[in-house]
Amino acid sequence: MRKTYNFSAGPAVLPEEVLEQAREEMLDWHGSGMSVMEMSHRGKEFMSIMDKTESTLRELADIPAGYKILFLQGGALSQFAMVPMNLLGESGKADYVQTGQWSEKAINEAARYGSVHIAASSESDGFNSAPPLAQWKISPGTAYVHYTTNETIGGVEFQWIPDLSAIAGSDKTIPLVADMSSNFLSRPFDVSKFGLIYAGAQKNVGPAGLVLVIIREDLLDVAPLSGTPTMYRYKTYADNASMYNTPPTYAIYIMGLVMEWLKKQGGLAAIEQRNIAKARLIYDLIDASSFYHCPVNRADRSRMNIPFTLSDSSLDEVFLKQAQTHGLLQLKGHRSVGGMRASIYNAMPLEGVQALAAFMQEFERNHA
Amino acid sequence: MRKTYNFSAGPAVLPEEVLEQAREEMLDWHGSGMSVMEMSHRGKEFMSIMDKTESTLRELADIPAGYKILFLQGGALSQFAMVPMNLLGESGKADYVQTGQWSEKAINEAARYGSVHIAASSESDGFNSAPPLAQWKISPGTAYVHYTTNETIGGVEFQWIPDLSAIAGSDKTIPLVADMSSNFLSRPFDVSKFGLIYAGAQKNVGPAGLVLVIIREDLLDVAPLSGTPTMYRYKTYADNASMYNTPPTYAIYIMGLVMEWLKKQGGLAAIEQRNIAKARLIYDLIDASSFYHCPVNRADRSRMNIPFTLSDSSLDEVFLKQAQTHGLLQLKGHRSVGGMRASIYNAMPLEGVQALAAFMQEFERNHA
Repeated sequence: MRKTYNFSAGPAVLPEEVLEQAREEMLDWHGSGMSVMEMSHRGKEFMSIMDKTESTLRELADIPAGYKILFLQGGALSQFAMVPMNLLGESGKADYVQTGQWSEKAINEAARYGSVHIAASSESDGFNSAPPLAQWKISPGTAYVHYTTNETIGGVEFQWIPDLSAIAGSDKTIPLVADMSSNFLSRPFDVSKFGLIYAGAQKNVGPAGLVLVIIREDLLDVAPLSGTPTMYRYKTYADNASMYNTPPTYAIYIMGLVMEWLKKQGGLAAIEQRNIAKARLIYDLIDASSFYHCPVNRADRSRMNIPFTLSDSSLDEVFLKQAQTHGLLQLKGHRSVGGMRASIYNAMPLEGVQALAAFMQEFERNHA
Repeated sequence: MRKTYNFSAGPAVLPEEVLEQAREEMLDWHGSGMSVMEMSHRGKEFMSIMDKTESTLRELADIPAGYKILFLQGGALSQFAMVPMNLLGESGKADYVQTGQWSEKAINEAARYGSVHIAASSESDGFNSAPPLAQWKISPGTAYVHYTTNETIGGVEFQWIPDLSAIAGSDKTIPLVADMSSNFLSRPFDVSKFGLIYAGAQKNVGPAGLVLVIIREDLLDVAPLSGTPTMYRYKTYADNASMYNTPPTYAIYIMGLVMEWLKKQGGLAAIEQRNIAKARLIYDLIDASSFYHCPVNRADRSRMNIPFTLSDSSLDEVFLKQAQTHGLLQLKGHRSVGGMRASIYNAMPLEGVQALAAFMQEFERNHA
């Protein structure tokens, strides 16, 4: 057992069992005589890894027929371009919900390809909440509605899936597009409510360098904007089982191990309960204290990323240094925000969160 | 020591020492308490890995000041779009040398963004040679000249760097662009002769999911085509030390270990001598036999990928099966070509090539 706990926002902690298995298989995967890194992506060994990874994801997330799973590269930032390039279609218009830095990046990139309408925003309260559905205004003829299910930097998470058909004047067939990068697979989610979901792997899924896309098949028929590169077309991946060119094979292998681990944890419903319990430990401590502070609206707080500040920010460095000596790693807040951030993804064990809570209480006693 | 030799064209064999070190460090890199896969890309631990990887590459390949090294994702296929999108500029015209399947893919993608002129082609001899410089015709006002230094499928390798200034009527300042994916770092190469070099990592450098770009800094000032996605702009990487978003951290780490290994082998001049000796073993055997055949013009034969056929192709399956039982893996030819292909990148030890040669001779004795 390792003696450290890693609270990085991503790339982030992986299950110890996964790393142990990867270590075990590093030079020789299942008697093949090869490391997974050395396998032809078209050989039967890697094909079996990829198929198993995909089918386990489909089972875990209960992804229905009519949706394709695609394995891509380039991070969520590439999706910020791929979504509009592939889905804007003839309308050239899209609606975006603005909830913090990640949704803003998505908006800025989309605006380079079409006309972006802000359907809702939490800017007026400093991006510390998820705009209630009653405030959403969908523009007529929009090609899709995009939102960010969890703002990794701001620590704001949607605890509900928007029902676009409940919005006055909204067309029921508008595809809902979600950036799930930082809470993908942390709870059950009804895929059938979405047109397209994407998620960078480096939070709950695996290493950096892999992006998952789940796309409703009819959306593959929208003609991409002219000038969309071959590797930026979803159809290139859908038509070639994500093997038009070499996929990031080792990242997919690690993802497969994480999917198996997640199944052993009891799947998404079970991991959700653990994630709720873990997050509550820290939020309860913060709310009971005047020494720690979290600015996020209680109903919209992220279970994955907990940003918090000390009442005396001159203690930040001491806090981080002492946390480090307690084996509590990478707690520094995002450079744009400061303070602290505890990212407690699926793979963060309860013991890690308990250790963080104990340290926070001790630090408060010593410095309050 | 492993008892197998892996002749995959890519992803491909990695040095055993590299895999052993990766195994050793899997759960805890240098006492950090973290796997490299779990590190924040902006933390001091990963930054040190990235800096070292880059500086070792710069030293090994003798990359002069005035050239940036960029770490990207998306494979060479993404470069097929990024090169024209970033370099076509106002002229909208580029010259390509056509030598086989990979250069053709580059040509087809570039033609989506501008006007492509075929400067030279080996199509008339079945793509079994590298067109001599005397046959190259550069079109006036071209933005760059692109060629593929090694055709991984066809097994054709340029043994020389084209000197564009020697071509009649050619503008001396035209940037030379090279896809070096499958022979990058297999021999010394004079970077100053190039405007831009790119290489997918999964042959001589590391795992799939990482692409290296070496770009002359003045080319970063060419305005990309409008509609070029943020993550398809070289400047995005150059201005942010390849950290505008999360780079493929683990692939970069493995690349760093491969760079260290390459240094220990004596660098590029030493590895070139080993690669020459390895390739000669197989080509000499093929040329001395009427049982095996390699179609490639002798002067242009690849040291990295050796395609060959049996005089009786009905024996192909037997050959591959028996090779497998001898621990000689992934020798099957590309699906578009058939026959066999032995890829013998830097990390393939001489012993592996000797084992292949011995097996080929034995197989010939038994079946000729």
